[in-house]
Amino acid sequence: MDYGAARPVRPEVLAAMMPYFSESYGNPSSFHTPGFNAVKAMNLAREKVASLIGAEDSEIYFTSSATESNNLSLRGAAVRYRKKGKRIVISEIEHISVINISKELTRQGFEVKSVPVDQTGLIDLGELEELVNNDTVLVSIMAANGEIGTVQPIKEAAEIAHKNDAIFHTDATAAAGQIHLNSSTMNYDAMTLSSNDIYGPKGVGAIYLKKGLRLKPHTIGGGQEGGLRSGSENIPGIVGMGKAAELMMKDMGREGGRLTKLRDSLIQGTLESIPESYLNGHPKKRLPNNANIRFSYIEGEALILSLDQLGIHTSSGSACVAKTLEPSHVLRALGLKHEEAHGSLVFTLGKDNNDDDVDYLVRNIPDVVKRLRAMSPLTPEELR
Amino acid sequence: MDYGAARPVRPEVLAAMMPYFSESYGNPSSFHTPGFNAVKAMNLAREKVASLIGAEDSEIYFTSSATESNNLSLRGAAVRYRKKGKRIVISEIEHISVINISKELTRQGFEVKSVPVDQTGLIDLGELEELVNNDTVLVSIMAANGEIGTVQPIKEAAEIAHKNDAIFHTDATAAAGQIHLNSSTMNYDAMTLSSNDIYGPKGVGAIYLKKGLRLKPHTIGGGQEGGLRSGSENIPGIVGMGKAAELMMKDMGREGGRLTKLRDSLIQGTLESIPESYLNGHPKKRLPNNANIRFSYIEGEALILSLDQLGIHTSSGSACVAKTLEPSHVLRALGLKHEEAHGSLVFTLGKDNNDDDVDYLVRNIPDVVKRLRAMSPLTPEELR
Repeated sequence: MDYGAARPVRPEVLAAMMPYFSESYGNPSSFHTPGFNAVKAMNLAREKVASLIGAEDSEIYFTSSATESNNLSLRGAAVRYRKKGKRIVISEIEHISVINISKELTRQGFEVKSVPVDQTGLIDLGELEELVNNDTVLVSIMAANGEIGTVQPIKEAAEIAHKNDAIFHTDATAAAGQIHLNSSTMNYDAMTLSSNDIYGPKGVGAIYLKKGLRLKPHTIGGGQEGGLRSGSENIPGIVGMGKAAELMMKDMGREGGRLTKLRDSLIQGTLESIPESYLNGHPKKRLPNNANIRFSYIEGEALILSLDQLGIHTSSGSACVAKTLEPSHVLRALGLKHEEAHGSLVFTLGKDNNDDDVDYLVRNIPDVVKRLRAMSPLTPEELR
Repeated sequence: MDYGAARPVRPEVLAAMMPYFSESYGNPSSFHTPGFNAVKAMNLAREKVASLIGAEDSEIYFTSSATESNNLSLRGAAVRYRKKGKRIVISEIEHISVINISKELTRQGFEVKSVPVDQTGLIDLGELEELVNNDTVLVSIMAANGEIGTVQPIKEAAEIAHKNDAIFHTDATAAAGQIHLNSSTMNYDAMTLSSNDIYGPKGVGAIYLKKGLRLKPHTIGGGQEGGLRSGSENIPGIVGMGKAAELMMKDMGREGGRLTKLRDSLIQGTLESIPESYLNGHPKKRLPNNANIRFSYIEGEALILSLDQLGIHTSSGSACVAKTLEPSHVLRALGLKHEEAHGSLVFTLGKDNNDDDVDYLVRNIPDVVKRLRAMSPLTPEELR
């Protein structure tokens, strides 16, 4: 139940990748048959990733990760179009990479403003309208938050950016393949995509960049990916991401419905059986696979380790910052206190989860919580 | 015969990677068993890559490619230590990524000097001594050039850098696993390593960074790789690079001897059977697997396509810049004229090449060259 941290590569994806490791292993820059075959494989993958968001294949560029895509998009857009203005607007609950890149950009003379979110994690569109001004070069709001699951009003946020001639980027790492994100109807200018988050291989990501826009490259060298991202192309990885996108698009409706049911029974079962447990994030506008639940009086880390012993894998927040043991900036932005943030648990469901898994969790988690509460000095007498 | 452009992943490497795609697919940042297993797998791979160059595992950081490693090393060192000085010294025949990164750094106020090479491709150590001064922050000289095969006097170059308290980086993309590059005897401070160039998977690279040195990170975010390189770790890729390094180290002596013989018979057979053909690069100080041969009066591209029809894959230079159809900057630096550079062909041998391959090439290439020369207006009458 920790698909947000890492996903298995689908068997069909791995099968699609296999020929490109040791047999058809050419370099797309080579001027011979194996090289031409590599170009073909890459172009097909590009089309498939483009299809996932209704884009044209020429609007997709491959990178090595969503984090790299965020670095390329944010720095690349802000620096390339810095004459437009020095303000960058993000949300308070962006991924740590977006937050850290923004900090770096302030050192380069940009001014970063964060739009707050309400207690369900939704950005305040009125506040966004106030923050985005004529001096704004870039607005970056994630499509959905992988930790609390809240889905943002991207289309409306893009409109606000465009009214001020600012570029609108959205980090769709957690959202792509889970919800519809059509580029022509939602009208974003740039989007970050992750391969592993759609059951593709790790070590691959992509950006969508609307035709006509250019970015200052982040990694420079031989000029691959139209000069936007240098480095010999990871063909097996790119082919894998393409196949993953194809399968994700085919499955989205059916699998989204299945996961929504599982998620809701996980939330209901847990909240009903454990006193003083609460759902974090939006009750409705949330990713089909995400449940984030807060348990008063205990620490998320102890809960995770106890569940691990039962074979249940969960997270206390984004795996990307798990090492720091800091309370999640996302939960703090919802207005939760330090100790409330610490007592929260993220469940991210995926293709191999089923009713039995949810039953097993709901059957076992009350005792685990009870035991940990019994050890906590904060727990009131009636819950011991 | 184009292992310089791309290499097949070894079967043992692919076998080592396989469990990490769909079974043991945890995120090293996660606080549960699958996460801990990912950390273990990554640490083991780090030890193996470190062993290849006699380094400590804490001195190895994984990236997504040699190009990214060059971006991180050069920008990261120059910017981090810019108080030391503004001069950066590279060679004229560095990889296009090093050259382009250097150009970018001049825009940030650095001053880049290129040390020339002689007609065999060796850097002029006397000239290097003159160029490296007290104001020099960084010297970057590749360990060997993948296009002309020339192996540089890295140890001596590092000494010159250190006498002036400059950091010494070497791009060992083409050299690692081919020649010995011990970190303690050769005394470089930073090194770029590529996974695919040692029969590991594409989409992975590494840098060696001597203990105590720090770099300004290139890609920022969740703080993976000790804060030096953010982005969720590509575990299957990293495991693959580790296994590839282990096998490369085991094989180096025997395989190096075998390739040297093959290379020499390729060079001798070709030069003897084709008039006005010449070896580019150094006759002795060259990579065991590299032959670069110049044929007067014809174009490399036509030669490559003709050989491709015979099932022989070669290159006209670095695949990294093949698309541009510009004559190689490396060959121009040797003093070759535009048309001489254009008529050159790179053969890079590898594990699946054998005597039969070389015989087949040497038997067929004279006719191909003759046919192309017959079509060229530049060819003198006696060679038609």
